[in-house]
Amino acid sequence: MTVQGYDSRLDRMFFPKSVAVVGASDVPAKWGNLVLTSILGWRYNGRVFPVNPKKDTILGLKSYPSLKDIPEPVDLAVFTIPAPLIPGGIRECAAKGIHAAVIISSGFREAGGEGIGLEQEILAAAREGGVLFIGPNTMGIASAHHSFECLPAPTAPGPGGLAVISQSGNLGLQLIKWIAHKQVGLAMYAGTGNETMLKTCDLMQYLGSRDEVKVISMYIEGIEDGRKFGEVARTVTRKKPVIALKAGRSQSGSRAAQSHTGSMAGSFATYSAMFRQSGIIQVMTPTDLINVSAAAAHLPIPRSNRVGIMTMGGGWGIIAADECEDSGLELPPLPEYVIGELDSCLPQYWNRRNPVDVVGENDAALYLKVIGALARWNEVDSVIALGIVGRSRYVEDFIAAQVQLDSKLYSKELKLAVLKDQVQNEERIISGVAALQKETGKPIVVVGLNEGGLRLADTSNGRVVYLSTPEEAVSILAHLSWYGRYLEESS
Amino acid sequence: MTVQGYDSRLDRMFFPKSVAVVGASDVPAKWGNLVLTSILGWRYNGRVFPVNPKKDTILGLKSYPSLKDIPEPVDLAVFTIPAPLIPGGIRECAAKGIHAAVIISSGFREAGGEGIGLEQEILAAAREGGVLFIGPNTMGIASAHHSFECLPAPTAPGPGGLAVISQSGNLGLQLIKWIAHKQVGLAMYAGTGNETMLKTCDLMQYLGSRDEVKVISMYIEGIEDGRKFGEVARTVTRKKPVIALKAGRSQSGSRAAQSHTGSMAGSFATYSAMFRQSGIIQVMTPTDLINVSAAAAHLPIPRSNRVGIMTMGGGWGIIAADECEDSGLELPPLPEYVIGELDSCLPQYWNRRNPVDVVGENDAALYLKVIGALARWNEVDSVIALGIVGRSRYVEDFIAAQVQLDSKLYSKELKLAVLKDQVQNEERIISGVAALQKETGKPIVVVGLNEGGLRLADTSNGRVVYLSTPEEAVSILAHLSWYGRYLEESS
Repeated sequence: MTVQGYDSRLDRMFFPKSVAVVGASDVPAKWGNLVLTSILGWRYNGRVFPVNPKKDTILGLKSYPSLKDIPEPVDLAVFTIPAPLIPGGIRECAAKGIHAAVIISSGFREAGGEGIGLEQEILAAAREGGVLFIGPNTMGIASAHHSFECLPAPTAPGPGGLAVISQSGNLGLQLIKWIAHKQVGLAMYAGTGNETMLKTCDLMQYLGSRDEVKVISMYIEGIEDGRKFGEVARTVTRKKPVIALKAGRSQSGSRAAQSHTGSMAGSFATYSAMFRQSGIIQVMTPTDLINVSAAAAHLPIPRSNRVGIMTMGGGWGIIAADECEDSGLELPPLPEYVIGELDSCLPQYWNRRNPVDVVGENDAALYLKVIGALARWNEVDSVIALGIVGRSRYVEDFIAAQVQLDSKLYSKELKLAVLKDQVQNEERIISGVAALQKETGKPIVVVGLNEGGLRLADTSNGRVVYLSTPEEAVSILAHLSWYGRYLEESS
Repeated sequence: MTVQGYDSRLDRMFFPKSVAVVGASDVPAKWGNLVLTSILGWRYNGRVFPVNPKKDTILGLKSYPSLKDIPEPVDLAVFTIPAPLIPGGIRECAAKGIHAAVIISSGFREAGGEGIGLEQEILAAAREGGVLFIGPNTMGIASAHHSFECLPAPTAPGPGGLAVISQSGNLGLQLIKWIAHKQVGLAMYAGTGNETMLKTCDLMQYLGSRDEVKVISMYIEGIEDGRKFGEVARTVTRKKPVIALKAGRSQSGSRAAQSHTGSMAGSFATYSAMFRQSGIIQVMTPTDLINVSAAAAHLPIPRSNRVGIMTMGGGWGIIAADECEDSGLELPPLPEYVIGELDSCLPQYWNRRNPVDVVGENDAALYLKVIGALARWNEVDSVIALGIVGRSRYVEDFIAAQVQLDSKLYSKELKLAVLKDQVQNEERIISGVAALQKETGKPIVVVGLNEGGLRLADTSNGRVVYLSTPEEAVSILAHLSWYGRYLEESS
């Protein structure tokens, strides 16, 4: 199906007031246990009804023999029972007045044999009974603003603006884990499984209509109706950034995709063209999917591909410049007025080029002057600041190295003062960067040369994105500036 | 100069029995202080002599007015005094019988003006006095097996097989920090600075001759004598892997390189051709420089570009297959005998393809059977195992989510048992992978889908390399298999 207009059953699916888990179990590691503990473990505020005819209570909750025995209204049924029992389950939903279902169970089209017929049967039963379902063969869904996590492994991502649609459960789960660890903030997650009824396209449309969703990330193996998809995307991308990773671009990858979700992968070039024409930002790796999406959720979108770079060391500036040109970003030469401004604060022998090399000085006020001069320069629309944040980690190393000695090289007080100074320096930079970002409306991306990839810092002037390597920063700005130009050209 | 034959002065430089620091200081953050504390902080066993006419003691050590006042022999002089004082310092070295020097001071050719003449003057003085120096304008050197770290920021990397030559101090220092954090193991580090006397080529030759150096990593902005460099490289790469990052491949990067170390960047294509012909593995980012080098130091070199993949989830397998084809790696189809072997241990509906999808099973013995079948398969020369290690982190998350509840969902004992089980599972996998690697002589790279990039696990059968993402694993195997084929074809 494709959602026609607004389908309120999607609200019941993602924001249920009450949930029945059909196949609930108290045996650890069983799906009916994992999903139930995930829902309970994340402070879900609604009512939860385990359904299992063999038990009176499960995880401390009363268990019901079947859906129809539940004495209260149910918004959503989650199924973890074997595939052959699902058609009956869907008919029970209809009888009980449950209009939304998540079918986690596998054993349908993807398994072949009688699974193919079963899948047709549940689709027919759902249509007849007015039940909207997602799956089967999905790892589940989540809506973070509703504290509802119907997944096999809770990682409790904080609520935020990023929504994820994934045609792979395993990969989708990993994306949520990254979102949680990086504190990016999740809005909603939908694992689409076999897409028997609800398709990626429907979910993109739904997420496009939800105000709490600021950015949509999609992992795609295959799409049936490319024309419809492109039409929906063109509307959604006018309102918010949509980022897609299309897997199966290689021969072996495409064959693996066919055997994975049974999807026809189609020509990769066709997908790329459709994404480009409909304003979808295309990425090539899961890491970039999260990085670009997180940045899109928290940074202004640059209006052009022109970048100003400040670097703490010449080598890193060269590396960043190389990466920029590889990715289609331009580094305009510094105009006289910017050079004049920087002459007043940098050592006499500074390089007078973009990237601006601040030659090892360690002074938050100086950095902010240089970053400010670059951000206010009207020929660039984004700024990369290399090597200035995350140094406190290395000050800690330095202190650790000193502590290995019994020596009096530095007193404990001095060591702590140095570390505190560095940490305060970094805080000043982060907060100054946030203020400049707000003032200029241009993204300023900070590269700390620490490990661990993308991180976000919270300030009173909004979030600052910082990264481990120049290539991550460049990839983010290249993708966002592509979208910025798409918006300008198509407006 | 270029080292003719074996120059024992290089041994004095990197393995000094005694060191004088000319310009030593007890003022924190001054170069003469940073370098001295770095040497002292890393348990250097030799004698250390601060030289500073204004002080009697520095950091608890007796300070000498000049080099000639030191009453003992000195192997190495390290200079942090201003550039105009260096020519005199070099002549003092000659007078005192010191034959090796590290000139950290800047203000020479890279600063222009009278710095150009000063640089010629120190070269002449050094040649006349038989002093071999590295720099000027370098951040220093280190030799980890000698516990000697003459750098501005100690991070105390453990001793190991990786040697680094860097034409950028800032970038080189960052590489050492990564090596320390990732516990890759450092052999030696040389920051070449302006390369007035010692050149990257000389150091490559020297490191090629040292037994404790297993792999050489180089960050290069420019090389003067490409023919000589290629000749030396051809000899060294027969003995050990050499990995190079040539910066300045873009127009802006190339201009930035010229103003950074004053080097003529030359045509990037010319460098690439020279690397290719002399067996140097070329990488494009600092991250890959460390990743490929660390893997080369600890893994067997694959003989071909054919890879077998095991994945915990279909999506990740497709992503990895895409990355393989992009990078020139091949995924041969599974032959009947491997399919038969896997039929006996995988669920009936397994995909019977490369990548092999183990469909979510969580069982160390099963993983090792699959990895073993792939590693022993004679049509592939390396294996990627996706998503099987690093899950204990997520078990911790799971437990943390449970702990948020006051509920009795799981007892504390059960939670700890689950975590312990997962950790033991991972340990079994790592140790089994190491054994298979040893048995088959093929690299088996593990992708944990955790954050933080490359890590190494120690086992009684050698190191196992594990990574955060499929693209990191693919990049490593693509580069190593290129080298493996170079060795075969040029032997």
